[in-house]
Amino acid sequence: MRHFEEQLDELRNRLLEMSGLVESAVYRSVHAVVNRDEDLARGVMDNEARVNEMEMAIDDMAVRLLALEQPVAVDLRLITAAIKINSDLERMGDLAVSIAERALSLMHEPSVNAQIDIPYMATLVESMVRKSLDSFVKRDSDLARNVLTSDDAVDSLRNGIYKEMVRFMEENPGSIPQALSLIFVARNLERIADHATNIAEDVLFLVEGIDVRHHAEART
Amino acid sequence: MRHFEEQLDELRNRLLEMSGLVESAVYRSVHAVVNRDEDLARGVMDNEARVNEMEMAIDDMAVRLLALEQPVAVDLRLITAAIKINSDLERMGDLAVSIAERALSLMHEPSVNAQIDIPYMATLVESMVRKSLDSFVKRDSDLARNVLTSDDAVDSLRNGIYKEMVRFMEENPGSIPQALSLIFVARNLERIADHATNIAEDVLFLVEGIDVRHHAEART
Repeated sequence: MRHFEEQLDELRNRLLEMSGLVESAVYRSVHAVVNRDEDLARGVMDNEARVNEMEMAIDDMAVRLLALEQPVAVDLRLITAAIKINSDLERMGDLAVSIAERALSLMHEPSVNAQIDIPYMATLVESMVRKSLDSFVKRDSDLARNVLTSDDAVDSLRNGIYKEMVRFMEENPGSIPQALSLIFVARNLERIADHATNIAEDVLFLVEGIDVRHHAEART
Repeated sequence: MRHFEEQLDELRNRLLEMSGLVESAVYRSVHAVVNRDEDLARGVMDNEARVNEMEMAIDDMAVRLLALEQPVAVDLRLITAAIKINSDLERMGDLAVSIAERALSLMHEPSVNAQIDIPYMATLVESMVRKSLDSFVKRDSDLARNVLTSDDAVDSLRNGIYKEMVRFMEENPGSIPQALSLIFVARNLERIADHATNIAEDVLFLVEGIDVRHHAEART
């Protein structure tokens, strides 16, 4: 068996690879909505099996490391964090699939003629996914805090889109299903951001031993 | 230090206690929506701190058991499952709080005069929460499979509510915000059911070693 440190490196690298897949799925699902691109949406859905396989392989690896190496202290915390991060990434992948499904249903409906910030929100969320994993791999607590700050911006974008869409629906009752789909896309992006926030919180706990999960005041 | 088996029992009991709190939060949040009961809604929000404390205490206990007892095989799987179940329960608690928040915002709006199945959906979801934890504590795979079956019923109820609300909004554009809130309540209930399903899948893996997470065909 290889050295324990090498295996921890491999665990980190696999999580990084999985986050790359998830980030690209988020990007493509949103562009499928905005550009009405069916191939992009199908690509996200085809990709799901790969994300699921990676999740199971990473989970198996982490549990095997716990069993065989019986790590303590920092290494133990690292592996339990990896198990949680893995689960967060897999759920982000599921949410990108939900966005791709919305893209497909929107594709054959008249487009919604309203000013909405979904592409900007998506860019912010993608960067949160990337930063949260970078903060884990580099053990960078500043980067993790940066993710927590972005989460507030995402929430306020989501609220803006919601209000805009309610106004649009009131004026265009015939377009309610399309506007609802866009609300759900924004909602799914917000949930992806929440998972990136979970990861950043795990990183802060790992690096600084601070439990920020339920203490807003410790997050600043 | 007490015997390891006793500590595992305590871990199970704490998860059971937490699921009782979460189940009651789901019940009260939905009744706050249906009966416009502000006290019930506030109660759910006050309860959140307790659920969060329990989550952190259970997480600490599980990681301490991993570190000090260095369990293998079945016990290791049990503890890693407990970590995941704990996280699912905490998220269900958050979703009940979201429903309570919707209850408060709906309380001061004219009520939506439409036939909706939210109370029935809530009853089904509460029973899924209870059964998923019972299946964990009793290692009962039949009960776990029963949860997976209910999840399909919840999805179809949610779709029915969604369609009903779209029709209602098209006919009553002045009531769009209230109808949207009810759509989000149904959506949050569906997400609580998804977390119960995650728990049931973890139990099946724990008891039978079958990984049903991404294999629909193994769920029957």
